[in-house]
Amino acid sequence: MTDTSPVCIVGLGLMGGSLAMALKRAGWPAPITAVSRQYGTVDEALKCGAIDSGTTSLAEGVSGAGTIILATPVRTLLRQIPEVGRAARSGALVMYLGSTKAQICAALDALPPGLQPVGAHPMCGKETAGFASADANLYRNQTWVLCPLARTSYEAFVEARTLAEATGARTLTLDPEAHDRAVAAISHLPYAVAVALINAVIAGNEPLAWPLAASRFRDTSRVAASDVDVMLDILLTNRQAVLEWLGHYVRQLGGLQQALALEDEAILRRLLSQGQQIRSRMKF
Amino acid sequence: MTDTSPVCIVGLGLMGGSLAMALKRAGWPAPITAVSRQYGTVDEALKCGAIDSGTTSLAEGVSGAGTIILATPVRTLLRQIPEVGRAARSGALVMYLGSTKAQICAALDALPPGLQPVGAHPMCGKETAGFASADANLYRNQTWVLCPLARTSYEAFVEARTLAEATGARTLTLDPEAHDRAVAAISHLPYAVAVALINAVIAGNEPLAWPLAASRFRDTSRVAASDVDVMLDILLTNRQAVLEWLGHYVRQLGGLQQALALEDEAILRRLLSQGQQIRSRMKF
Repeated sequence: MTDTSPVCIVGLGLMGGSLAMALKRAGWPAPITAVSRQYGTVDEALKCGAIDSGTTSLAEGVSGAGTIILATPVRTLLRQIPEVGRAARSGALVMYLGSTKAQICAALDALPPGLQPVGAHPMCGKETAGFASADANLYRNQTWVLCPLARTSYEAFVEARTLAEATGARTLTLDPEAHDRAVAAISHLPYAVAVALINAVIAGNEPLAWPLAASRFRDTSRVAASDVDVMLDILLTNRQAVLEWLGHYVRQLGGLQQALALEDEAILRRLLSQGQQIRSRMKF
Repeated sequence: MTDTSPVCIVGLGLMGGSLAMALKRAGWPAPITAVSRQYGTVDEALKCGAIDSGTTSLAEGVSGAGTIILATPVRTLLRQIPEVGRAARSGALVMYLGSTKAQICAALDALPPGLQPVGAHPMCGKETAGFASADANLYRNQTWVLCPLARTSYEAFVEARTLAEATGARTLTLDPEAHDRAVAAISHLPYAVAVALINAVIAGNEPLAWPLAASRFRDTSRVAASDVDVMLDILLTNRQAVLEWLGHYVRQLGGLQQALALEDEAILRRLLSQGQQIRSRMKF
């Protein structure tokens, strides 16, 4: 049975704001409360009916909640965990939404034993940040990766899964290290690739490039527009995995570069064909 | 006044097929004829009303035309130019659609003096190839870059521009070298970047990556699905410009990699912020 003591969402940005809206729309049985740094955001969320109550005090917000969902940037969250540990009531489910898991799961493991931590990573997003970008449909038909800890009770895990599925998402359970390596490949690496693309065109100083940029440049560079604070935290807390994938990437790019420099058409064709075959088979 | 002797489109793939359809829809005053390697494609184009007549013979197709538009992959086109030179009637406008200009413009310069060459590069495309993907709206609101040669008459240039604009496109006139450097940055480099991304994920052997891939990976890798023959010709005929941009790109990526390896947050933030600021300002 679903706990009907309040759900407290900490952070009303794109992810937290969208979660509040999605739970409200799904008719989630518990009150939805929130903590935001800024009273204006609390006010906005109250006015549009995304939350039932809100505060700018972390301790006050989490103290009465049966479920606490941390939806702040990774390193803010690492700072908030000890305070959540002191203020949360025993037995509370402590979820967090975030793109890197291993470092946060280690921090969550230091919570008082009565708390039930579960990591969650909704595999979706937008390039715009903040409550103004929040959307009740953000999670619909997307995947949430769930990472329970060894100490997490099965009951708490099921509660976390029920909440994720109430947003319209599918869930997939992984251990934190497997999660971090996989998302470094398909999310953090593409981000680095896109940033380097924009920066290379700046460095090459070609004023004609920008007016000519069309769909190919638009799509390949899109994720470079992601929120810098969020991405900086992600890269720095998933550093080893990102560096490993950057290594694979630099080698592949070097292979293309060398084949082109040597006009080695056979190798070039093989590299392009491999990319083409895999990419054209992918369904999204 | 627009010439009403036939327009002959050589190659009924995505670009040539879409051009035939767009000209028909615009009510272009001259008959639209086509040359295709395969009779089946000629037949298909005739049946859907995209062309008025067609042939599999290049010499036969171009001999009566007032405007010849070559829409075959770059290196096929380089082989076809001498035959076009022998078969075309004096005074004909010879346009070609293609993503690299300098090498082709040099070949076009060897055409008999009576012919009027103009390069054209519609800055749009799709990842699917062939007449089956052709679309009368492909060029609407897109940019066609036009590259007249020094020998091209102003009258022929205006005719080429009128034809491009009849498809719903805007035009921009550039010299071939400026064109090639700019499109290497915003089209050929993103293609190499996307292919290397797919190939890196293959090389890193992470089976979880593919089921977790979401919008970030989808968009950044999309253009890797482009037609390999077309792209191989483009890379090999625009090799120097692509290599120059790959050099800029590898340096930018190396800067990101080093800042992350050293946990140099200040430099990392500066690199990410530069990419974010430029990309979020871009309008498409």
